[in-house]
Amino acid sequence: MRRNSIAHEGVTRGTSRMEAYSDAVFAIAFTLPIVEIELPEGGRPLAQQLAEQWPDYLGYGLAVLIIGIYWTHHHFSGGITRTSGHWFNLALILFLGAIGFIAYPARLFADRLSDAAERGTAGTYFAVSLAALAVTWWIKWTAGLAKGHVDARLDPAYVRKIQRRYNVSVLLNLAAGALAFISWPLGLGLALAVVLAYLIPPPTPVYCGEAPEVEGGGG
Amino acid sequence: MRRNSIAHEGVTRGTSRMEAYSDAVFAIAFTLPIVEIELPEGGRPLAQQLAEQWPDYLGYGLAVLIIGIYWTHHHFSGGITRTSGHWFNLALILFLGAIGFIAYPARLFADRLSDAAERGTAGTYFAVSLAALAVTWWIKWTAGLAKGHVDARLDPAYVRKIQRRYNVSVLLNLAAGALAFISWPLGLGLALAVVLAYLIPPPTPVYCGEAPEVEGGGG
Amino acid sequence: MRRNSIAHEGVTRGTSRMEAYSDAVFAIAFTLPIVEIELPEGGRPLAQQLAEQWPDYLGYGLAVLIIGIYWTHHHFSGGITRTSGHWFNLALILFLGAIGFIAYPARLFADRLSDAAERGTAGTYFAVSLAALAVTWWIKWTAGLAKGHVDARLDPAYVRKIQRRYNVSVLLNLAAGALAFISWPLGLGLALAVVLAYLIPPPTPVYCGEAPEVEGGGG
Amino acid sequence: MRRNSIAHEGVTRGTSRMEAYSDAVFAIAFTLPIVEIELPEGGRPLAQQLAEQWPDYLGYGLAVLIIGIYWTHHHFSGGITRTSGHWFNLALILFLGAIGFIAYPARLFADRLSDAAERGTAGTYFAVSLAALAVTWWIKWTAGLAKGHVDARLDPAYVRKIQRRYNVSVLLNLAAGALAFISWPLGLGLALAVVLAYLIPPPTPVYCGEAPEVEGGGG
Repeated sequence: MRRNSIAHEGVTRGTSRMEAYSDAVFAIAFTLPIVEIELPEGGRPLAQQLAEQWPDYLGYGLAVLIIGIYWTHHHFSGGITRTSGHWFNLALILFLGAIGFIAYPARLFADRLSDAAERGTAGTYFAVSLAALAVTWWIKWTAGLAKGHVDARLDPAYVRKIQRRYNVSVLLNLAAGALAFISWPLGLGLALAVVLAYLIPPPTPVYCGEAPEVEGGGG
Repeated sequence: MRRNSIAHEGVTRGTSRMEAYSDAVFAIAFTLPIVEIELPEGGRPLAQQLAEQWPDYLGYGLAVLIIGIYWTHHHFSGGITRTSGHWFNLALILFLGAIGFIAYPARLFADRLSDAAERGTAGTYFAVSLAALAVTWWIKWTAGLAKGHVDARLDPAYVRKIQRRYNVSVLLNLAAGALAFISWPLGLGLALAVVLAYLIPPPTPVYCGEAPEVEGGGG
Repeated sequence: MRRNSIAHEGVTRGTSRMEAYSDAVFAIAFTLPIVEIELPEGGRPLAQQLAEQWPDYLGYGLAVLIIGIYWTHHHFSGGITRTSGHWFNLALILFLGAIGFIAYPARLFADRLSDAAERGTAGTYFAVSLAALAVTWWIKWTAGLAKGHVDARLDPAYVRKIQRRYNVSVLLNLAAGALAFISWPLGLGLALAVVLAYLIPPPTPVYCGEAPEVEGGGG
Repeated sequence: MRRNSIAHEGVTRGTSRMEAYSDAVFAIAFTLPIVEIELPEGGRPLAQQLAEQWPDYLGYGLAVLIIGIYWTHHHFSGGITRTSGHWFNLALILFLGAIGFIAYPARLFADRLSDAAERGTAGTYFAVSLAALAVTWWIKWTAGLAKGHVDARLDPAYVRKIQRRYNVSVLLNLAAGALAFISWPLGLGLALAVVLAYLIPPPTPVYCGEAPEVEGGGG
């Protein structure tokens, strides 16, 4: 009945704690950047100072967008994963470390966007960071699949389709990171485009037998 | 039996992870403002300095009040929602981004309240931020309803009543944001009044058939 | 069978979300104070600077101790609570706002402990804050009981015993807060003694019928 | 059937809330260090400033690594624990206080690594902190075992093997802390080696009867 509980290391558990831990890291990474926005000092008109804070708002918005899209997709992939285990958890830690980090290059880029001399460096740094994040996602997914944590009831063709998507995304993200050293707007633009592409919903899972019932929650 | 699992995109899941993520963002947004209160430097009597910190306390109290009331209501709406999916999650991300932000204008307003020249700007900014927050709530609710995530066993008349409330609230909040540009005390007062109105409990759900059993928890 | 689901307002839900939100606020309030400890600047021997940081460590330790004991007790009271609802949630928000705040007076007290002129003010402030925290706990518990959220299967004599404890604790905490204005060491000592008394485990619940089975968790 | 529900104090509950609280503390401790990395001020070339930030990245990486490995192992030990109770929770609070603290000595060590005069002090401090963390882990595990919270269906020989590992680890960590006063590279190297050894998966649980079914999660 449960063909995927074949991990031979440590304890194979359900996904609820893995997801709870991930959700908490996502939530903190998502919310923390707000503490970096400081109250204007006073001395000049407040309205003008608030307007001048646009890089702070842009940095917060970029972090919310990127972390939010990754969360939405993590929520999706958690829906087709059945268990978690030691190696998958280690790969998850790597991915979550990158999630926790990504707000920093986003803020840095927003902060230097109006600085003609430095926005190239900040943009390249941001694109490379997005590539690193994509790589850790790919490692996490691949580790989960290799260790048998992905729902074994899924149609193998469906799983291959998902895997292909992640392969393409990570390659595009790596290309974007490299491209950024030549042209940062092209590189960063490509990197953000790959993230934004995940606003499009993933294909609905296809199961070999009957689709498992959705666990309703109104308790 | 479960008529609302009709989303055609991604994975339709129960609400537990969506709520866990939301709860964590709410909790962080709720608790973070305390790090903004700094220990008095010394040099002057501590009692006097603590008394002069009242804007910090007011800012913390406003954030706790607003975020707390929104959480209470999110807890309510989670109780009449059965599933979550891709578009609903994206709308949720938008709403949570606004929740994470709202402590900032609250603190700013508290900080400038005693500054006759700037409290108008800060109050207007706060009222506009509250309007934006209300809009994101409305989008999240409406997306959830449109995508079939709201409990299909509810009496349609009940759902319409809830929808009407949110329509009225968001219009009032938008009006308050606009009004603040003319008279900030009136605008902000209206905006806060709309939030405080949610201290009144929402109407108890009415189901077409038998009400679902409450899931007790003492485990 | 379930006699306590009689709230007439909003949605009566199980306790899982209420506890998840509380746990997250507790966790953040518990962990945040560490960001207030700054790396020594350099210039003087590091060992000496680390030794001079003892007030930071004391402040962190006090916050961990107080918030930890309250969490342990919240975990206990969650175990004898079956549902949550609108008014209980509002009382919870008040309590959690106080939990989020309590690290601040703890740090302030630790910081001024070696300042003979100000430690009285800081100690009094800390004792008063602990009294306020105890009052919010009492309000939360009493609201939960009044609204029928406490497990109706408990022996009424047991519930009265728990209520009596909380009544005594809150009165002692209020007395400690008042006493601190006369003698801060006595007042603060009493306040901390009341918190530390909760290191003693609460009495094991007594049920009218058979005790409900413990929900094991190893999934 | 459930032989381990024998705690005579407070409420014996399942592990879900204990794990949820732990997960949130882990997540915050894991993610918070990022706020300590400050945007470069400007004035000098950004690329150079980013390169000079390597101690910040190293400090973040060390914290993510150590906290991540401990989380992975806490996830394992949660999988063989069935209940939680008062004394176990108090031991947990102690352990989580140490988890919340550990990023500080990691950052301090990374910050002083290039300072020949101070890296010894910082390295020793880090090694001693890792020893303290290991001690709190050992106390938590031992308290859980002593209070009957570990799954009673496990083969006693398996439990003894796990206990032996923790005994050895804590002794090695204490030795590493002491050794650091003589030679900080040796002491710290040993302390980190003990943490890294937990990258190796723990032995798969052995049950007396049939192994409990893994709780799948895709809801």
